[in-house]
Amino acid sequence: MGLMQLSDSMLPQLEAELARQVARLEGVHTQAMHEMLTYHMGWSGADGPQASPGKRIRPLLLLLAYAAHREDWMLALPAAAAVEIVHNFSLVHDDIQDNSPTRRGKPALWAKYGTPMAINAGDALFTIAHLAILDVGKSFSANLVLRCAAILQQACLDLTRGQFMDLAYQRRGGLGVEDYWPMIEGKTAALLASGAQVGALLGSEDVASAGRFREFARLLGLAFQVQDDILGIWGDEARTGKSAASDLLEGKSSLPVLYALNREPRFAKRWLAAPVKPDEVPALADLLKQAGAYDYATQECARLTDEALAALKEANPRGDAGQALSELARQLLGRRQ
Amino acid sequence: MGLMQLSDSMLPQLEAELARQVARLEGVHTQAMHEMLTYHMGWSGADGPQASPGKRIRPLLLLLAYAAHREDWMLALPAAAAVEIVHNFSLVHDDIQDNSPTRRGKPALWAKYGTPMAINAGDALFTIAHLAILDVGKSFSANLVLRCAAILQQACLDLTRGQFMDLAYQRRGGLGVEDYWPMIEGKTAALLASGAQVGALLGSEDVASAGRFREFARLLGLAFQVQDDILGIWGDEARTGKSAASDLLEGKSSLPVLYALNREPRFAKRWLAAPVKPDEVPALADLLKQAGAYDYATQECARLTDEALAALKEANPRGDAGQALSELARQLLGRRQ
Repeated sequence: MGLMQLSDSMLPQLEAELARQVARLEGVHTQAMHEMLTYHMGWSGADGPQASPGKRIRPLLLLLAYAAHREDWMLALPAAAAVEIVHNFSLVHDDIQDNSPTRRGKPALWAKYGTPMAINAGDALFTIAHLAILDVGKSFSANLVLRCAAILQQACLDLTRGQFMDLAYQRRGGLGVEDYWPMIEGKTAALLASGAQVGALLGSEDVASAGRFREFARLLGLAFQVQDDILGIWGDEARTGKSAASDLLEGKSSLPVLYALNREPRFAKRWLAAPVKPDEVPALADLLKQAGAYDYATQECARLTDEALAALKEANPRGDAGQALSELARQLLGRRQ
Repeated sequence: MGLMQLSDSMLPQLEAELARQVARLEGVHTQAMHEMLTYHMGWSGADGPQASPGKRIRPLLLLLAYAAHREDWMLALPAAAAVEIVHNFSLVHDDIQDNSPTRRGKPALWAKYGTPMAINAGDALFTIAHLAILDVGKSFSANLVLRCAAILQQACLDLTRGQFMDLAYQRRGGLGVEDYWPMIEGKTAALLASGAQVGALLGSEDVASAGRFREFARLLGLAFQVQDDILGIWGDEARTGKSAASDLLEGKSSLPVLYALNREPRFAKRWLAAPVKPDEVPALADLLKQAGAYDYATQECARLTDEALAALKEANPRGDAGQALSELARQLLGRRQ
């Protein structure tokens, strides 16, 4: 059984668990609030449910890390729902902070319901996530649940740290790649890492083994983010569905940009002066390439991918779930074998 | 030993615990983020620390409910810090949602650092609160900690529900007092109630007794909110430090307003048409009084105060802490004996 078969059996049950958790908001006076969350989660909306409400990578990692130790992965569903809900909370608030009007091809929550309502809906999702993880207490010891809750909370704190750096870096000079890594450790790697760690810890009760799964997911997150940064500047629109060079328009502090900022004064001058216009994008992307940013980012992506796959080997996940984790990693990192 | 002596010994230790918890954000890349939080908490700022960084009512209730059972209230400090930090998280986000530029006489966090940073700083406070309550695991069983964490999380969810209602009610017709109570159950009562419940549960490990402390604090919160609503329209500026009638200018869905909306068409028409201007305030306050809103709110405040004090008697807190809880309630509710 490979990734497809396992995820085919996990994802419907995960979706049901997510719906159960979000239903905490059902009630006479908060029906409209519940609708906001079902809209954001991709289950409803004027144009009907989305074909793909999100990739659910984080909960899948958690469930597979669990399933690499024990077969009864259904017991870990509340924890899997928790990490996915934290991810969605962060999307709701990030869209406000970044002034991004769309999410998954539909109006972002704040664009549809206004900023005050969206801030509050994000807070509700955040709370529901923390209530969700406590639900694993039905099947696991209080001690284990507490450790998992602490891991998730710490990841949330790391998320806010990463987001702080991202906001603080906007249009700021004097930055370099050394400022990039702590940012994406928080923004991208922390939640993925915590999911794999929680899954493995629930499945094995072995702190050392859970730490190895954590390290794999952390490196996977870093590699994935660097790859995403490369595609965001030089990407293939047909393949990624994402407009190439959109990251330059959005002023994103991606790895190529932070690499070039203190190496290529012409790029830095233009970057710090004002938002980039669409017709300037090709020349700026070329300037980044000349500065060595493409080569550097590509090398880092390859290094991190190798390290992630080595860490997975170290974690030594067993059986079908082990095979599926390896497939998931290669799929995310665009490696065919 | 009365309230003064007990709070004089508790508050400095609480402040130290709060600082320890917020210090989770100290670090090379997040120093400025840590400063945002110390500013909001009232410990720093261009004009120096505030004389009064907030009343710390919620953690005091928690510590006193604990101290009514056991003397070693220091062990409950992380939980007390948690409820105060949740309260402060909600202030940060509420100020953005309400577009309120000042907080405790200084610029609100969003007014000083911008909305994106303030949303994120609020999220960080929220996370720190949940990490803080897990710290009572140093002194109490995992089972007990889990129950306390769940109580606090549920209060947070109730907070977001109450805030949703508050936002949804703005300039909306067809509302009545039946819409008021679930709103303030969430916005005001839930966190106070959870604090007293957690304190009593940690101190006694007795669910029934903790429930009685919860009920006392819930009623105290409701009575206090109704009193605050009355003062916000007909209040005595010299006594409250709050401009009388400011709630009418702010369009707040207070009890007198919701009472009058479907009883006094002249008030409803004006209220729903556009924001109230300062020179209209005295006439509108009179109109509310004529509609019976003042009498109704005053009666409800008296009823809830009586119920709160009866619930405290029922909870039967012992010793100095019991005396202090009674004093705290009477002080908050403006009763001299």
